[in-house]
Amino acid sequence: MIKLVCVGKIKEKALQSLIDEYLKRLQPYSKVIIVEVDDAIAPQSNSEAQNEQVRNLEGSKILAQIKDNEYVILLDLKGQMWDSIELSNQISEIQTYKSSDITFVIGGSLGVSKAVFARANAKWQLSKLTFLHQMVRLMVLEQIYRSYKIMRNEPYHK
Amino acid sequence: MIKLVCVGKIKEKALQSLIDEYLKRLQPYSKVIIVEVDDAIAPQSNSEAQNEQVRNLEGSKILAQIKDNEYVILLDLKGQMWDSIELSNQISEIQTYKSSDITFVIGGSLGVSKAVFARANAKWQLSKLTFLHQMVRLMVLEQIYRSYKIMRNEPYHK
Repeated sequence: MIKLVCVGKIKEKALQSLIDEYLKRLQPYSKVIIVEVDDAIAPQSNSEAQNEQVRNLEGSKILAQIKDNEYVILLDLKGQMWDSIELSNQISEIQTYKSSDITFVIGGSLGVSKAVFARANAKWQLSKLTFLHQMVRLMVLEQIYRSYKIMRNEPYHK
Repeated sequence: MIKLVCVGKIKEKALQSLIDEYLKRLQPYSKVIIVEVDDAIAPQSNSEAQNEQVRNLEGSKILAQIKDNEYVILLDLKGQMWDSIELSNQISEIQTYKSSDITFVIGGSLGVSKAVFARANAKWQLSKLTFLHQMVRLMVLEQIYRSYKIMRNEPYHK
């Protein structure tokens, strides 16, 4: 099973509709679920200590959604970069040798707590660019879909 | 002015709606337009020579949309990677010292012709990952929006 643990709700209907489309396309390949945990309020005026509190609060909610056997890939701007074929190989190898349950964690706008960071089995950098974290959800789903297409040697579009 | 020259039409309404949303958000910052050129039919059974023909056909349509004074940034998997702040600096420097008209070129699913490659003033790699080229349009617009927010020192979300 593939699980995405994400912080916050998707507000744009159009974005949600694209996410739903990829969940549908993924059905023949794997069970894929999205778990949303509540984001904490973080005004721009927050001190770094207050931001740390936000990350800790969100972090404990993220960790509550992860079981011991799950292999956790944290989306992280300091993570490793993979191309689509490498990602596909990663997923395939993890599911064969490590755990059939892979959980991708997409933190909130302030990033994740140290505890979430420590729980991660791997850290993955999608791009050097910073994207709206809600859009990251769509980008990750599209890549997981592409990964399965690559694994099965099926044609996919660019 | 910022121009995106893209190959093919967006078929998903939801994706078009997100693209329109970013075009709207960009209005206070810069004139931003999208020019779509027709994609050529490229069946999986095509030979490499036939694919080259497709790229040349699409390429000549792309080049017809670019004026001499425009600074062309080609989206390319072998291009340079920038983080969001570096991209913002690039746009700002190009518009100050080189040309106020920046054109981003997003090729079709087979990539672009040698002529388009030769016309490019810079090549930009969004990510090591291969994304659906229609989704790249949204990702580029979100980054341009973010670039202007960074230039103006305005808060933006992650």
